[in-house]
Amino acid sequence: MATDTPEALEVLSIADRDTLQKNESGVTSSSPMLLRMESFIKSEQQRIVRALEEVDGTRFRTDTWTRSNGGGGISCVLQDGNVFEKAGVNISVVYGSLPRPAIAKMRVNHPALDPTLESLEFFAAGLSLVLHPKNPMAPTVHLNYRYFETANPDGSPAVWWFGGGTDLTPSYLFEEDAVHFHRTTKAACDAHDPNYFPRFKAWCDKYFYLPHRNEARGVGGIFFDDLDANTAHMDQEQIFSFVQSCLRSFLPSYLPIINRRKDMPFTDREKQWQQLRRGRYVEFNLIHDRGTSFGLSTPGARVEGILMTLPLTARWQYMHEPEKGSREEKIVQVLKKPVEWV
Amino acid sequence: MATDTPEALEVLSIADRDTLQKNESGVTSSSPMLLRMESFIKSEQQRIVRALEEVDGTRFRTDTWTRSNGGGGISCVLQDGNVFEKAGVNISVVYGSLPRPAIAKMRVNHPALDPTLESLEFFAAGLSLVLHPKNPMAPTVHLNYRYFETANPDGSPAVWWFGGGTDLTPSYLFEEDAVHFHRTTKAACDAHDPNYFPRFKAWCDKYFYLPHRNEARGVGGIFFDDLDANTAHMDQEQIFSFVQSCLRSFLPSYLPIINRRKDMPFTDREKQWQQLRRGRYVEFNLIHDRGTSFGLSTPGARVEGILMTLPLTARWQYMHEPEKGSREEKIVQVLKKPVEWV
Repeated sequence: MATDTPEALEVLSIADRDTLQKNESGVTSSSPMLLRMESFIKSEQQRIVRALEEVDGTRFRTDTWTRSNGGGGISCVLQDGNVFEKAGVNISVVYGSLPRPAIAKMRVNHPALDPTLESLEFFAAGLSLVLHPKNPMAPTVHLNYRYFETANPDGSPAVWWFGGGTDLTPSYLFEEDAVHFHRTTKAACDAHDPNYFPRFKAWCDKYFYLPHRNEARGVGGIFFDDLDANTAHMDQEQIFSFVQSCLRSFLPSYLPIINRRKDMPFTDREKQWQQLRRGRYVEFNLIHDRGTSFGLSTPGARVEGILMTLPLTARWQYMHEPEKGSREEKIVQVLKKPVEWV
Repeated sequence: MATDTPEALEVLSIADRDTLQKNESGVTSSSPMLLRMESFIKSEQQRIVRALEEVDGTRFRTDTWTRSNGGGGISCVLQDGNVFEKAGVNISVVYGSLPRPAIAKMRVNHPALDPTLESLEFFAAGLSLVLHPKNPMAPTVHLNYRYFETANPDGSPAVWWFGGGTDLTPSYLFEEDAVHFHRTTKAACDAHDPNYFPRFKAWCDKYFYLPHRNEARGVGGIFFDDLDANTAHMDQEQIFSFVQSCLRSFLPSYLPIINRRKDMPFTDREKQWQQLRRGRYVEFNLIHDRGTSFGLSTPGARVEGILMTLPLTARWQYMHEPEKGSREEKIVQVLKKPVEWV
């Protein structure tokens, strides 16, 4: 057994140590953050999947996978359902090792990292969700919350941070939807810091942007990264509590929207417009999204899990121009200039 | 007039000088290469477009555009035709200025470039073509040939090179198509140098590759870049002649294939498989293709022209696996390992 001798204890990886700890004592509020985050996103994934199955009337397919060096994940995907063209709710837990150039890059935001290290063990846990509804009146929604931690050579935590956000991408604008989505998300933020929502809404508008199209991916939401004790002006416990509020506010922010749009009548022309907007979504995810390119460049990455964010179908039409004064033109105008919905 | 005084002559840009020369004396075999390449791709574009219109039975839409700093292009696109879902045949002529970091990067392959320059005027002319047929039995084909030249501060040519290639991407494998395509392309190469085809076929297999999928984009063709007097062991005239042969061999390499596949019967399931393969094409072009990312990051780029290479429609299906022993599995196996077709 790896725990037989003190020598063996020293070579225990974070993954082994965590498995041991979970098996011995379960996850409680005094467990290390990485275990608490893992446990939290696991239960939220269940809750979200159950709620979406109720909306759609069909079941998600679940794939559970493990990695040889520790970690793994659960992918829940619903494809060609009644309400959703494609819906993915994934959690993943990664134990890995960062090479020196990656550490140097990371030090920009985390100066506490030791620059002399040749490699650095890290842990990451996150929940990702993308829902592409069938009805062109119903918006696509994306959400991701993640926790990242590096370990000192002795196994103690070195630096840690949280990242995440959620954003809404309609093909047709319903202002009440955009307002409801932002209002719900704002309330979750405001309970922790009144500065968070404006700060993270601006970050979202900046991040989910297609420079080559000169337009935003959607109507906004929130986005943040590298949130630690310095950047958040909060301790780890408080930031975790903030992230929990955000993730828990997802269903209330989106369910009312999907429920009022999923059965609306629509025309072939409107469906086609949705497909063109899906094309833009693909462009953002494949060209600009840092998470996607980081994932795809990671050796041994689970590509199907990373690309489950892509829509089932998309369309690229040469020189398509929305008609003057149309609802299609309206949404494009809104995407050209961020709107403060609340 | 810019030509009134010797002082004015010195500030004449390459674009102005070229316009002047074309207007004064037309383009002959003693004209500078950039004018000859421009004239050649213009006439080839016409020829290819006419031939494809005959195959499809509908007309291309033509957009002519100019850039304020000289240059411009002609985009010919046929969308939702009888045979082609989307077909684009574009030529573009670009006069621009490379900043110092871009010059440093370029010196790797072109050591003659002066490293002390703060900026460098360049000229590029090329023809690009992508055809996505409707029938899933008919392969997508891509072609691009381009000439690049930089200018010394006195306006004389500094370094120059040719690049290009053509490759075939079937959804269903017909070996005779792959053999015909490669045989025709090989004959064009062999007339100039018997080493070119094997060298450029290997380069094609390496370049049109999706590492995250561990598969090639298609069944191959040829690809080359930075072809100059040193790398080609030929003078400029001979390389131009080689590029002309390649471009002229395109119609004979593809027309017999499209003509025997365009009216074949197919099922919904086969159409859906084609759509999934279209998704992979989008992945390559948006994630890996250097031309696309260079184009999209160029300020003021004509995005619709660059992205005309994308199919009209594409599909991403989570965890799709071709059936064992099926024709879908067969093509995937072939894409895993390059085949020498001739």
